[in-house]
Amino acid sequence: MARVSQEHLDARRRQILEGAARCFARNGFHATSMQDVLKEVDLSAGAVYRYFSGKDELIAAIVKGVLAEVRAAFEEVTRQSPPPPPDVLVGEVLGRALGIWGTLSVEGEPAFPRLIMQVWAETVRNPELALVMDEVYGVVTTAWIRVAEAYQEAGMMRSDIPAEHVARTMVAVVQGFIAQQSLLGPAPVEVLQDGLRALMSMTGSQLG
Amino acid sequence: MARVSQEHLDARRRQILEGAARCFARNGFHATSMQDVLKEVDLSAGAVYRYFSGKDELIAAIVKGVLAEVRAAFEEVTRQSPPPPPDVLVGEVLGRALGIWGTLSVEGEPAFPRLIMQVWAETVRNPELALVMDEVYGVVTTAWIRVAEAYQEAGMMRSDIPAEHVARTMVAVVQGFIAQQSLLGPAPVEVLQDGLRALMSMTGSQLG
Repeated sequence: MARVSQEHLDARRRQILEGAARCFARNGFHATSMQDVLKEVDLSAGAVYRYFSGKDELIAAIVKGVLAEVRAAFEEVTRQSPPPPPDVLVGEVLGRALGIWGTLSVEGEPAFPRLIMQVWAETVRNPELALVMDEVYGVVTTAWIRVAEAYQEAGMMRSDIPAEHVARTMVAVVQGFIAQQSLLGPAPVEVLQDGLRALMSMTGSQLG
Repeated sequence: MARVSQEHLDARRRQILEGAARCFARNGFHATSMQDVLKEVDLSAGAVYRYFSGKDELIAAIVKGVLAEVRAAFEEVTRQSPPPPPDVLVGEVLGRALGIWGTLSVEGEPAFPRLIMQVWAETVRNPELALVMDEVYGVVTTAWIRVAEAYQEAGMMRSDIPAEHVARTMVAVVQGFIAQQSLLGPAPVEVLQDGLRALMSMTGSQLG
């Protein structure tokens, strides 16, 4: 058996994941078969099954790849004390998370938003994927809780609101913004940053 | 043929939609057949097809019903000048939108979040549903643009940010918050209101 370098293995793995991501984005998770993936990447069943046992493992691997990027981006950003304000932080984390799949396109459109919609829909019915998504939400929620607490300690944010509520809201706005790309058409991350800045410029009678 | 009152027709229509919504939330749109819906509502094919020609019409009717509620809620809320701040406004509109399907449950869990995930996923591949969703996004985006402009005119929000960016951000946070209910577990709308209040309490060097 020929010796195969780690780089070759990684590139092959990445090639398979990209083909699967294109299939899922184009036709949805359920309407995609492993045969479709084999055809898309132009590899034999043996070559693909060596890496992934099936569609479930493919979609889980795609999500885990994005998770690793998001985790790294948060670690980098939260090294600053206090962390950058939400508009800046969102730009850096989202930029990095989109980087990994952001360049992939299907029928001339960015594949990532369509892909993530398929992931969300599948999560509802696939317990294994739900576990991976739990981990994603755990990571981003925990990271945002820490960030919100740091804002509050630095006097940048009113401190009478549970940091967890801030975290859920920040996770929601990023998730909704990504979903919007497939429903309302693409928008650069600057749109979201502007919107956050506008909210941050408001004050109201509800201030404690 | 017996005369049938309008109330009876409306109640029957509502009964079919609820059954379909339960099926879609439980098994997903694709895995649900019209046979499943007939069984769920315990009606004959003739009784159901009198109202809806198939699954596509059912899911479109569900979305249109929510749209009507959202439209009415926005009309009510924006009668005030200036409109209430985002945290208050979101509470009122979301409360009303959730009211229509908020009480429906599947396997002891609220059905609405799961239902909406199915709608979003299906939108990507169903041009007719995409048109209905375009209308939903048109209505809420236009409403939020008007609200943001009113905030800016009233000096409640910095005025150098396009109102459309504020609108996309507000639509994103609400959509993301709804999606979260199925992924992170249910949370009352007060969580989102708290998060918005926290953002509104921030100021930063990025203020123009």
